[in-house]
Amino acid sequence: MIIIDILKDACIHVKEQTKNLIGTAEGNKKFGVGAGGDISRMVDLIAEKAVIDTIKRTDFKPTIIGEECGRIEGDQGYLIMDAIDGTTNASRDIPFYCCSLAYATDDKLSSVVDATIIDLVRGDLYYSSKNKGAYLNGNKIGIKKYVNNGTENEPRQNDILIGLNISGASESIMNHISKIISKANHTRHFGANALELCYFARGFMDAYIDIRGKIRSTDIAAAYLIVKESGGRLYSITGSELDAELGTSTRLSFLAVLDENMFKNLSEDLHMS
Amino acid sequence: MIIIDILKDACIHVKEQTKNLIGTAEGNKKFGVGAGGDISRMVDLIAEKAVIDTIKRTDFKPTIIGEECGRIEGDQGYLIMDAIDGTTNASRDIPFYCCSLAYATDDKLSSVVDATIIDLVRGDLYYSSKNKGAYLNGNKIGIKKYVNNGTENEPRQNDILIGLNISGASESIMNHISKIISKANHTRHFGANALELCYFARGFMDAYIDIRGKIRSTDIAAAYLIVKESGGRLYSITGSELDAELGTSTRLSFLAVLDENMFKNLSEDLHMS
Repeated sequence: MIIIDILKDACIHVKEQTKNLIGTAEGNKKFGVGAGGDISRMVDLIAEKAVIDTIKRTDFKPTIIGEECGRIEGDQGYLIMDAIDGTTNASRDIPFYCCSLAYATDDKLSSVVDATIIDLVRGDLYYSSKNKGAYLNGNKIGIKKYVNNGTENEPRQNDILIGLNISGASESIMNHISKIISKANHTRHFGANALELCYFARGFMDAYIDIRGKIRSTDIAAAYLIVKESGGRLYSITGSELDAELGTSTRLSFLAVLDENMFKNLSEDLHMS
Repeated sequence: MIIIDILKDACIHVKEQTKNLIGTAEGNKKFGVGAGGDISRMVDLIAEKAVIDTIKRTDFKPTIIGEECGRIEGDQGYLIMDAIDGTTNASRDIPFYCCSLAYATDDKLSSVVDATIIDLVRGDLYYSSKNKGAYLNGNKIGIKKYVNNGTENEPRQNDILIGLNISGASESIMNHISKIISKANHTRHFGANALELCYFARGFMDAYIDIRGKIRSTDIAAAYLIVKESGGRLYSITGSELDAELGTSTRLSFLAVLDENMFKNLSEDLHMS
């Protein structure tokens, strides 16, 4: 039983089960509030069921942690799922959302050893196992510190693109982040954290920042490993390497960056401490 | 000679000519500064050539205005092109960029009578002719004031998603915009103005705002008509209906909104006047 293969199968199963539901009135039907505190929609429930069904067909018995289902006890580590990340995009049919699955040996982010994220629109499958690098559809991916402009490589710092999650950010948060925005050449915000972190991991973005303190460790568990294995660094706003207990109640702020130096520069501009 | 059909042909020609170049070192090769003031890349030049070649094969002789070519004189109105909108995305292979073409009878935005925008990644073709509605791949599109949640329609104001272009926005601009961010449930920023305005026009977003004063009328000419024909409203920050001379030197700020009431609310939060 190779766990990463089970996670890949589950991702593909989620894509098949949800493709005709996303953005439809039926898919958007609401079913109260899930364990994570957000409104559950039909499509979220179908997606979680697709993951759980895939696991149940194997002899792999992890404790399953999900936004809708809460916690299903097992005795072989932890399977952390955000079966639909980017629910708002999905509910409006905006083509940017994904399924994020991680397997951890212990109850913390730094214990994640296998991770898969599937782009549910394009079908791109990102995955990583600890110490084995990060991959997209079989090809190794990594952060990029240089940009190829035809005849020569130029350092990215001349043309910085930063992903920012500022959805519903308070005026106070925006006050902290506005210097970073003014100094970056470009900012982006696509609306699905896990998939945006994959964009960072494959070199599309030079940093990705979310300092709202709203992201659950469930939301970021798979991207955590993929970013690290792509050569990126993940910091908390206080400057420690990012880590946290798993589960839907832990809320995080973080910066994904190319290196420590970049973290220091961004951190100064954030003036949070 | 039906002008909208020539514009559609030109869009498809741009997609064919650029698809293998975008995101490559060859496509990113720099060629000095274009008429619009930005650095020209190989892919920008190839895309403009694809448009100009398409026009030349017909007996349509408009004055052509483009970011790279500047102005090519003609005597049958104005063809305004942003052959690649979202160049930064395209140069990094981030899958969100488009080609935007508009035909105007006179030298101003409000004289645009035909418009096409092609999503160069997905192939989606948005188009509109004045007073004939807005279309996507043959299907009529329009803004949405209600969201369908399964059994009932709910007013969108309970779940507002606003597109914002804040790339390189100054701290002062961010100070003006932070209240809007804090009040919206969700914000997005995909990185290609014309295509983001198509997302607004098809009901994905409830508003789209760019108050940096950096957008050229060339960049927005096609989207201007598509937004209006989809039922949306376009305002300047001073509250007048948006209009401007065409050309690459005019720079604009604007708000695309569902209705006048929404403009008033957003405008108050901007506190620009």
